Amino acid sequence: MSRWTFYSAPGTCALATHIALHEAGAEFDLVKLDFSAGQQQSAEYLRINPKGRVPALATELGVLTETPALLAFVAQRFPEAGLAPLDDPFAFARMQELTSYLASTAHVAHAHKRRGARWADDPAAHEAMRAKVPQAMTACAAYLESQIAGPWVAGDRYSVADSYLYTVGSWLEGDGVDMAQFPKLTAYLARVGSRPAVQRARAEAS
Amino acid sequence: MSRWTFYSAPGTCALATHIALHEAGAEFDLVKLDFSAGQQQSAEYLRINPKGRVPALATELGVLTETPALLAFVAQRFPEAGLAPLDDPFAFARMQELTSYLASTAHVAHAHKRRGARWADDPAAHEAMRAKVPQAMTACAAYLESQIAGPWVAGDRYSVADSYLYTVGSWLEGDGVDMAQFPKLTAYLARVGSRPAVQRARAEAS
Ligand SMILES: N[C@@H](CCC(=O)N[C@@H](CS)C(=O)NCC(=O)O)C(=O)O
Ligand SMILES: N[C@@H](CCC(=O)N[C@@H](CS)C(=O)NCC(=O)O)C(=O)O
Repeated sequence: MSRWTFYSAPGTCALATHIALHEAGAEFDLVKLDFSAGQQQSAEYLRINPKGRVPALATELGVLTETPALLAFVAQRFPEAGLAPLDDPFAFARMQELTSYLASTAHVAHAHKRRGARWADDPAAHEAMRAKVPQAMTACAAYLESQIAGPWVAGDRYSVADSYLYTVGSWLEGDGVDMAQFPKLTAYLARVGSRPAVQRARAEAS
Repeated sequence: MSRWTFYSAPGTCALATHIALHEAGAEFDLVKLDFSAGQQQSAEYLRINPKGRVPALATELGVLTETPALLAFVAQRFPEAGLAPLDDPFAFARMQELTSYLASTAHVAHAHKRRGARWADDPAAHEAMRAKVPQAMTACAAYLESQIAGPWVAGDRYSVADSYLYTVGSWLEGDGVDMAQFPKLTAYLARVGSRPAVQRARAEAS
């Protein structure tokens, strides 16, 4: 296959896919966008990803976006890495239930801290959104705490969902969540954070 | 397998999974929650789905939630129905890219009309969110219009993503989107709407 290019930006959800790519042993070039310079809205990047967001993965077949889709794709393209229960529809759905929740609920709640302009124009509304982030993210943390079934979120097998839960989980403290309430999640985040693929992705992404 | 139970509520995203179940020929009991009576927060329902949302599907192996996860699950459990490109990771990712976008961007934008209390406490902020829904949903409609590749969203093969795009697409007009700007999407919605499984699910769900 032709070499892939992965588009990322520091401190974003793109870390989840970045970790998954390293866990899989994928070869790819990394392009880091500078959000402070608005590079996600440059004409050049919009030709690659018209959504103007990261992550995006340029493959030999086309550009893919959306974290849950990318995570399943990496797992399916590198089956020997064992990053998802590919032969068990229920277990695969359980994994995707988590990645889908992270994308549509937890990440969205977090985005109300700095991206309120997506959903309202009034600066006072943005302020009201920011004010509720700790409460909304604490509710997410409580749900996530309840989902950790073993050393990894699904139990004994590490999966691409772990790379995503790690990524979103690492936002919680900065979002005003009192992590002392969530000891399983805290220990879990340290456990995932010690994996070589995670450390490599973090070092490259920052 | 023991008979499944599907939890839905009228006018919600649960329609997408409901349609997919009928397209697959699945047997299930339907339970409709009355949101106006707050049934999604009843102790009985929270025991089934602690998230207090629909859809939820009670299977012989446990309860599954989250529309993108449920759609892929239905397609994988009924492979003979041909509701997803199960043997092609890139095509499957393309399908999931759409379902993930619908869940994390389009559905979320729509939810700012009536569910602003998830993200802010101030009623003025809820009003500011409602005011932006037409603009945000018009941007979603433009993206979705660009994604329709044939009679069905992925081209020649109907998939579970169509049941979801149909569901979210049917919200656009009520969200203040001028559908005359989106002729492909308008024709597409009529096309999906004429399928027997869609008509059956709509009749049962309302
Ligand atoms: N649903 C997408 C969301 C992608 C997304 O919102 N990415 C953020 C970074 S975490 C971004 O690129 N934001 C740039 C912007 O809003 O301009 C996914 O899960 O991949
Ligand atoms: N991410 C979930 C969202 C589920 C969801 O928000 N469902 C709405 C109906 S469209 C609901 O149950 N709302 C009830 C409430 O907020 O009380 C999915 O895609 O299934």
